[in-house]
Amino acid sequence: MRFKLIDSREVFKGEVLSLKVDTIELPSGRKSEREVITHRGAVGIIPVDENGMIMLVSQFRHAVDKYLLEIPAGKLDAGETPLECGRRELEEEIGVEAGVIDELARFYTTPGYSDEFFHLYIALELKKGKASQPEEEITGVVEVTFDEAMKMIKTQEIEDGKTIAAIGLALEYLKSKA
Amino acid sequence: MRFKLIDSREVFKGEVLSLKVDTIELPSGRKSEREVITHRGAVGIIPVDENGMIMLVSQFRHAVDKYLLEIPAGKLDAGETPLECGRRELEEEIGVEAGVIDELARFYTTPGYSDEFFHLYIALELKKGKASQPEEEITGVVEVTFDEAMKMIKTQEIEDGKTIAAIGLALEYLKSKA
Repeated sequence: MRFKLIDSREVFKGEVLSLKVDTIELPSGRKSEREVITHRGAVGIIPVDENGMIMLVSQFRHAVDKYLLEIPAGKLDAGETPLECGRRELEEEIGVEAGVIDELARFYTTPGYSDEFFHLYIALELKKGKASQPEEEITGVVEVTFDEAMKMIKTQEIEDGKTIAAIGLALEYLKSKA
Repeated sequence: MRFKLIDSREVFKGEVLSLKVDTIELPSGRKSEREVITHRGAVGIIPVDENGMIMLVSQFRHAVDKYLLEIPAGKLDAGETPLECGRRELEEEIGVEAGVIDELARFYTTPGYSDEFFHLYIALELKKGKASQPEEEITGVVEVTFDEAMKMIKTQEIEDGKTIAAIGLALEYLKSKA
């Protein structure tokens, strides 16, 4: 089946994201507009310590006007590999280094309207790194067990999509290694 | 800690999403711009049949220019509850009704730059409903076991964020009921 791009109009070019409106032709011949966000991609890393505690950061999110509990994460810097980005976010946001980093998944966060591609890692064998230097939005680190985390998803104390995906995948990852 | 909104400028108002650029004042007094997508919210529902097979749809995603395997999902229509939206997407996209629908989670898909809020359900006790009438982008239904799905996440045959979150949560949900 063929979807043909007929026209593409750039609406906005920003620091974090850009927006275009594309006109496409569907297989039936019908024309339709698609609003598309372009984004340079991001990385998240779920740190799990030797006691099985997950380390989350409390972060103010202006877009939703509240604090969320999230795994360390951030946008890819220019020239940086996803793994380098993951290590950097781990140090900056919670001040730890990891002896082991493994990939859990790569995915599109919201493919209905955005090309943002996300790299998700797990960090194990944690040790104290340089003191963290998080952005002002990050106000602290919270440690929870997997059982607590699953409950906090149900009660919406954890309500960040990538963090929810990370918790489920990390749980399966650790079981497969046990 | 206080984050103050200083200015908000609407850049684009579309069918699916809108975009504004906000200027905020951080607790330190520093001013910073935030690009913010507003979105009316969406719903996804993971159907699991009596044999433990997950039903996924193959859907063309213009934003990433490829077909992705995803759970049935869609944007909230005006006046529709999230549960009604889930039932509708289930019928439209795969032509089934569910005897049981339970909530798995509610979350922000990408709170770094969007207010999109997502409702995630599991559908059980499936039975044939009205014939599906999916959009042109949807080209078929694929059934996989949970084991296959976990492998397909690793191999990037499944690379949709909400679908990955749903598979992990559905697995834990079914274990907790077993």
